[in-house]
Amino acid sequence: MSGNAKKRVGILGATGTVGQRVIHLLRNHPYFEVTALAASDRSEGKRFVDACNWKLPFEMPDAVKEIKVQAIKPPLECDVVISSLPSDIALEVEGAFAAAGYPVISNSSSYRMHTDVPLVIPEINPDHLDMIPVQQKKRGFQKGYIVTNPNCTTIGLAMVLAPLQKAFGLEAVMMTSMQAISGAGYPGVPSMDIIDNVMPYIGGEEEKVEEEPQKILGKFSRTKFTPAPFLVSAQCNRVPVQDGHLESVRVKLKKKATVEKVIAVLAAFRGLPQELQLPTAPARPLIVRAEKDRPQPRLDRDAEGGMATVVGRIAKDTIFDFKFTLISHNTVRGAAGAAVLNAELLVAKGYL
Amino acid sequence: MSGNAKKRVGILGATGTVGQRVIHLLRNHPYFEVTALAASDRSEGKRFVDACNWKLPFEMPDAVKEIKVQAIKPPLECDVVISSLPSDIALEVEGAFAAAGYPVISNSSSYRMHTDVPLVIPEINPDHLDMIPVQQKKRGFQKGYIVTNPNCTTIGLAMVLAPLQKAFGLEAVMMTSMQAISGAGYPGVPSMDIIDNVMPYIGGEEEKVEEEPQKILGKFSRTKFTPAPFLVSAQCNRVPVQDGHLESVRVKLKKKATVEKVIAVLAAFRGLPQELQLPTAPARPLIVRAEKDRPQPRLDRDAEGGMATVVGRIAKDTIFDFKFTLISHNTVRGAAGAAVLNAELLVAKGYL
Amino acid sequence: MSGNAKKRVGILGATGTVGQRVIHLLRNHPYFEVTALAASDRSEGKRFVDACNWKLPFEMPDAVKEIKVQAIKPPLECDVVISSLPSDIALEVEGAFAAAGYPVISNSSSYRMHTDVPLVIPEINPDHLDMIPVQQKKRGFQKGYIVTNPNCTTIGLAMVLAPLQKAFGLEAVMMTSMQAISGAGYPGVPSMDIIDNVMPYIGGEEEKVEEEPQKILGKFSRTKFTPAPFLVSAQCNRVPVQDGHLESVRVKLKKKATVEKVIAVLAAFRGLPQELQLPTAPARPLIVRAEKDRPQPRLDRDAEGGMATVVGRIAKDTIFDFKFTLISHNTVRGAAGAAVLNAELLVAKGYL
Amino acid sequence: MSGNAKKRVGILGATGTVGQRVIHLLRNHPYFEVTALAASDRSEGKRFVDACNWKLPFEMPDAVKEIKVQAIKPPLECDVVISSLPSDIALEVEGAFAAAGYPVISNSSSYRMHTDVPLVIPEINPDHLDMIPVQQKKRGFQKGYIVTNPNCTTIGLAMVLAPLQKAFGLEAVMMTSMQAISGAGYPGVPSMDIIDNVMPYIGGEEEKVEEEPQKILGKFSRTKFTPAPFLVSAQCNRVPVQDGHLESVRVKLKKKATVEKVIAVLAAFRGLPQELQLPTAPARPLIVRAEKDRPQPRLDRDAEGGMATVVGRIAKDTIFDFKFTLISHNTVRGAAGAAVLNAELLVAKGYL
Repeated sequence: MSGNAKKRVGILGATGTVGQRVIHLLRNHPYFEVTALAASDRSEGKRFVDACNWKLPFEMPDAVKEIKVQAIKPPLECDVVISSLPSDIALEVEGAFAAAGYPVISNSSSYRMHTDVPLVIPEINPDHLDMIPVQQKKRGFQKGYIVTNPNCTTIGLAMVLAPLQKAFGLEAVMMTSMQAISGAGYPGVPSMDIIDNVMPYIGGEEEKVEEEPQKILGKFSRTKFTPAPFLVSAQCNRVPVQDGHLESVRVKLKKKATVEKVIAVLAAFRGLPQELQLPTAPARPLIVRAEKDRPQPRLDRDAEGGMATVVGRIAKDTIFDFKFTLISHNTVRGAAGAAVLNAELLVAKGYL
Repeated sequence: MSGNAKKRVGILGATGTVGQRVIHLLRNHPYFEVTALAASDRSEGKRFVDACNWKLPFEMPDAVKEIKVQAIKPPLECDVVISSLPSDIALEVEGAFAAAGYPVISNSSSYRMHTDVPLVIPEINPDHLDMIPVQQKKRGFQKGYIVTNPNCTTIGLAMVLAPLQKAFGLEAVMMTSMQAISGAGYPGVPSMDIIDNVMPYIGGEEEKVEEEPQKILGKFSRTKFTPAPFLVSAQCNRVPVQDGHLESVRVKLKKKATVEKVIAVLAAFRGLPQELQLPTAPARPLIVRAEKDRPQPRLDRDAEGGMATVVGRIAKDTIFDFKFTLISHNTVRGAAGAAVLNAELLVAKGYL
Repeated sequence: MSGNAKKRVGILGATGTVGQRVIHLLRNHPYFEVTALAASDRSEGKRFVDACNWKLPFEMPDAVKEIKVQAIKPPLECDVVISSLPSDIALEVEGAFAAAGYPVISNSSSYRMHTDVPLVIPEINPDHLDMIPVQQKKRGFQKGYIVTNPNCTTIGLAMVLAPLQKAFGLEAVMMTSMQAISGAGYPGVPSMDIIDNVMPYIGGEEEKVEEEPQKILGKFSRTKFTPAPFLVSAQCNRVPVQDGHLESVRVKLKKKATVEKVIAVLAAFRGLPQELQLPTAPARPLIVRAEKDRPQPRLDRDAEGGMATVVGRIAKDTIFDFKFTLISHNTVRGAAGAAVLNAELLVAKGYL
Repeated sequence: MSGNAKKRVGILGATGTVGQRVIHLLRNHPYFEVTALAASDRSEGKRFVDACNWKLPFEMPDAVKEIKVQAIKPPLECDVVISSLPSDIALEVEGAFAAAGYPVISNSSSYRMHTDVPLVIPEINPDHLDMIPVQQKKRGFQKGYIVTNPNCTTIGLAMVLAPLQKAFGLEAVMMTSMQAISGAGYPGVPSMDIIDNVMPYIGGEEEKVEEEPQKILGKFSRTKFTPAPFLVSAQCNRVPVQDGHLESVRVKLKKKATVEKVIAVLAAFRGLPQELQLPTAPARPLIVRAEKDRPQPRLDRDAEGGMATVVGRIAKDTIFDFKFTLISHNTVRGAAGAAVLNAELLVAKGYL
């Protein structure tokens, strides 16, 4: 980053589960410092330390404790906002911030599938950021813009699909998830629904996973995203696990492959964040494990600080070509870390 | 059942998780009474109440408390044995009992795929029992024989596949399971492996689920089973749930169908056990639930005393034809109840 | 019960966790039938089957499905109301029902410690019901009155203390609880607070347990309750268990005793409900278990249909006289069953 | 530490849950390097990476992967051994190592209460190490000796009792624990015993907690330990939590105190490890939290890298003087970290 001053970050939805993770990830960040915190009416005007029911197993950073929580509307004292808002309010609020000149890096679902909004995983489709000028022109934004990251369940899946698509081509993907409770925020999932139980339903989740990967793995040319033409089927379940979305996946490829080749292709995967050595980039975005009983949420979700996707149990499938199991930390790589890595990439590419 | 006297039942593996369930299911049974209990060396010679680490949330029936546990070998004082042994010892032991003249109703995996051994779910393929005389002749058994029930994960799946196959034909089935810990017996799954965690591996499970359904839904003619020609792909996971295997399933059918027709076909499913009103038969072998968040292990595993399979979330799939979620109680319908229902059917058909 | 007609019961807070249990317990009751259901504004006017998020692992009884949910205020079409309301609204509402002529059997905390309101466990202090006429006179109630049952954590404790007090006298009681999540209702405890965790705080709970036992085990004479003069110290924790409050207890007695005598006194405990054979009365209100690792929530909470208190690990204490562990099903014996048993006792004593 | 070379450490019970934690804590240690790993017969001769079922959510350090696992007997290539063995074999094995000239720093229970063996928490009784020469003389050890750390449940308790004893004197302590499953090692607690359950029994645990604190907080003079004369009562329960023992405690003090004074005394507590800035010493050995719902295992067990004891809910008790809740990470502060901190103290005091 050129210049000495850190970029000032405002966090929308700062008291939420993802907002807390963003604060934690930015606590000693070389590019960014948190200067503004916005949250719902209930919190407005309180010191953050009083407004936030902090639920991470780390201490709240001292630097944010005394910040006054503001309403979720412009202006905020910051150069960029990272947003993690419920989709019902994100549409209006994030649009308002972009219109008011703020780059908006959003973890919300509202804008992900808009035709002029980049849906970016830095290792996979960093070129999609070049939609920003098109978006600004189309929407009449001066300096502001909106960049999104995918749903937490999509991200881990897309990380594994990307190298497979490149090496072998993708025809179809069947994914069944076992998702952590932190994905629903706080208070989120009632304990009576999940102790000694599995919930076979997560509102809106299957729809998101069935359309986001194709946009991410699709092409961008000048003014248009063209989704990749493979099919995704998703069945999403909630399990009694704090963090980490586990996914059982089968893939049908276009070209022939072997288990050995699949492992080699996945293990070799690197992207632009690794090349640029972005601060939050995992050294190994994909970790392939050979043990028959890995990955597991408890043992693998925190690999590379929660930014790696861990994949294992790669084998021939009886119907499709291959089956495997992957895990991705849903609030780090799948949300807060995704947004922060996007922010770092925006800095690297000169958009911030 | 003709005659007043109850059939005397010996239980092989009586101290195990499934053995305990069998004892519970037979506690006031109209056809059967437990007269012999056999278990591993460690238990031999002890009173059952002393030998057995009883782990069911019901009291141990008084009738079995004082029974002396015997070695797992013939002779036993009984007319039939229900076996639930580890597969490594079941092959020899169950063969020895059959050779010694005992009908063996087995929950073990050793003989399931043998070409002359019926693998039976009474609602689906009761005619397969007519392999018994063929088996006896081939193996030189006089009065004894071996009848098996499927793996706990197969059973719930096959219950739903059977009416679909009959109505629409089956091409392919993708199943991802979230299985209860009781399926691994006691001590079974170490708690460090499953609290706040999912285990993506269950030894031998995927292989069983990928071959058993085709035998069950296949044809029997005179001396031969011909497996049904559809494909099954299985990914099996263990979750922190005491009882009840939940399965996310997609199916590809031969004929066109609609969600409404699928629901109608499943809800109408009845079999011979319902017709004969066998004591352990559930009134409704399949229960279709319309709520978006059902079935769930905690709320649905005990439907019809744990003998019903509950299915829900039936919807069009983006790749195959339909997707749905089912649950089946793994130690009742999936093991102990499966064996007891087979025993009842054997009585009804005159084999016992 | 004299007469053929069943008493008509109205349930206040019918859609809640305890309300659902009351409905389940009354599904085929010889004395009572549910005729009216009242719940918060949100549910008003809906059919119960539509209004209630049914969370019990049993089917909702057909008889209540079509009942229209009414506002929580008189009049209701019933002879008696069973109330399980949040304490903040119970004070006004229950008073209004009693004033309007309804006997109110309350599981709420609002009136428990009022000097003219019986706080009753039928096995322990059925004579306290004779405060009813005093209460009616004092409050100007014609036919109505209020009878309460204790807090869910108090009940199991009091069940064990009662025979100890009678046999040996009580000086002091130290109780540390590990309470089930169902005690907080639905949605209740957020899963992020309890998966892989213990919550060392339950609002208001310690205060209740520290004052209710003395009233229950105290004397009633003509117009006045005199609390028993022993001290109680409570520390209350929430653990990841669906049902069943486990309590680690030490007691200091007035007279000398031995472990054997304590066991004998507890095992012999019977009360008026057992003598009268009230429909919901457990045959054995206290079950003493000798195993070193019992009682446990999963194995013992459902003893006698959840109406028994199970106690074990009775041993000499190094500081007080004895220590032991007990469990009581918090929503059956500790709430819904407590109210229903009180209702049955009121019928038996002619108050209903 | 004077000199450049690191002390070479051998780990007895290296493949166990505590052994793994010791390896993790020593991975980049300024004083120590792991050079020898010993474990049971089953592991002997294998590379550690093959022998050990690594269950920590961190990667196994590369430095130990290729070490050959040896039998648990002298000689080992090391200057000191850290032992975490089952008590049944620790007695003989640790004695043999000490006799063979090795300083033995033991987490096992066998020697803790021996009259010539220091039972040390560095913040509390570092002077007890001066029993070492007495022990060597008495037992005829040349260079070897045995130093122990307390049981995992004792440690957190003693950390809080120490400043209370010093400031106010102690008369009696009632402790009820809710202990994590990792305390039982691997495979340890069967999952069927702990999912949706609490186990009210941990073999030998209550006895240890009832006698160890008095030795630790007792006096050492020349050749003798005199236990502190307060009483401890313990009730120990196992809960479905991966790590962190939570304890509900009441204390009776000799002098009058107030909640404010208790908080002040606890918050101010520091010991020799803090003064010496030993590498593994937590900056704050006791952390007092003011929130009404803290400490919790998930949020507080990892405070100061798992080396701090966190205490909260400090209040007047109705029977004793004060009640509070504490948590201590059972495999870090309560075992591996306790041994490592003892090792560091031994270096600082010149015994190593």
